[in-house]
Amino acid sequence: MKIGILGTGMVGESLATKLAQLGHEVKMGSRSANNEKAAAWARTTGAKASAGTFADAARFGELVFNCTKGDSSLEALRLAGEQNLAGKVLVDVSNPLDFSKGMPPSLLVSNTDSLAEQIQRAFPKTRVVKALNTVNAFLMTRPSALPGDHNLFICGNDAEAKRKVVGVLTEGFGWRAGNVLDVGDITAARATESLLPLWVRLFGRFQHANFNFHVVVGPAPQG
Amino acid sequence: MKIGILGTGMVGESLATKLAQLGHEVKMGSRSANNEKAAAWARTTGAKASAGTFADAARFGELVFNCTKGDSSLEALRLAGEQNLAGKVLVDVSNPLDFSKGMPPSLLVSNTDSLAEQIQRAFPKTRVVKALNTVNAFLMTRPSALPGDHNLFICGNDAEAKRKVVGVLTEGFGWRAGNVLDVGDITAARATESLLPLWVRLFGRFQHANFNFHVVVGPAPQG
Repeated sequence: MKIGILGTGMVGESLATKLAQLGHEVKMGSRSANNEKAAAWARTTGAKASAGTFADAARFGELVFNCTKGDSSLEALRLAGEQNLAGKVLVDVSNPLDFSKGMPPSLLVSNTDSLAEQIQRAFPKTRVVKALNTVNAFLMTRPSALPGDHNLFICGNDAEAKRKVVGVLTEGFGWRAGNVLDVGDITAARATESLLPLWVRLFGRFQHANFNFHVVVGPAPQG
Repeated sequence: MKIGILGTGMVGESLATKLAQLGHEVKMGSRSANNEKAAAWARTTGAKASAGTFADAARFGELVFNCTKGDSSLEALRLAGEQNLAGKVLVDVSNPLDFSKGMPPSLLVSNTDSLAEQIQRAFPKTRVVKALNTVNAFLMTRPSALPGDHNLFICGNDAEAKRKVVGVLTEGFGWRAGNVLDVGDITAARATESLLPLWVRLFGRFQHANFNFHVVVGPAPQG
């Protein structure tokens, strides 16, 4: 599959590398066509890897991952281009974290709205799926690095788009199908983005990011 | 120990009954001294159970549980009385859920503030500990009803108050000590109250409340 990765940070590089290893053609997009980090990634990753602008990557991919920082995702996606994203499945991995007021970060949008909804409203022809935003970049593509069952939460308005993303998560990245929890339409991103404040507190407690949430479900109570 | 329970709903009744069964003296407080539900609870629970106003319960308890609805907790606590709560440990179990805009509920306060912080600011002489707000009333006092490890999150500014609450949770209610995660000072209630939107979505998916979050923690990554 042809895949566009928007963003050259830890998340973008981790996903791009894994997807290229899986045999996909991957174009890493950034603000500038001359981004050295993206060029170096493409050079070292192999023949199926390439680099370009956000627009190049969006045009290239049938599946596109938004791995830009949450506070500039909407701008990055505008640079990627509404037409280049039309009809595409866009996996929104970003979180609207606001570090401007110190640590721990708060959220730029929350409670009655979410970044994923803002993106879906701004790009109505794009099929936005929120996923992978509640785990560290390393765990995203290596779930078995953390033993036992633990969950990913996905949501979005388009069932077929969610199926496509679940396929990449399970067959590609190795998440057990039963551990990918579909929590509803794109408004459920309010709930999954709101996990970040707790994630950040736990990161502060453990001093590392090799942890994740597991929803333990028992039988329905009787009576 | 003498314990005051503010609120006669499912949460208040569940906690009051368990605490009385454990041998504590428990007074259930409500808006009116003639609340029939509280009186019936006291009558059926035994000699160590009693009922009264919010103020009666707050005056009575050395440990007080806020089990009122989040949208009226501040008012209930004002009725309980600042002097009656001064120096006491107040376990805030409530969630600031706003059902006025339909389902799923949003939060009345979130992100850069929390209900627990509002309570702590309004009652500065009270030692507020946020706890138990992320599980169903049934699970609060019966953690083994859901097999395996799963977590409670607690936070607050007073270490001694948190130790006291952890004692009730572990020795009283049966939570394993390792499963009670202290996530920091009272500002961490922003994070734990923000779990509710996801809890509500999961409740919608499972159609029952016998579930909880387990934070799975691996070893720190190398290098």
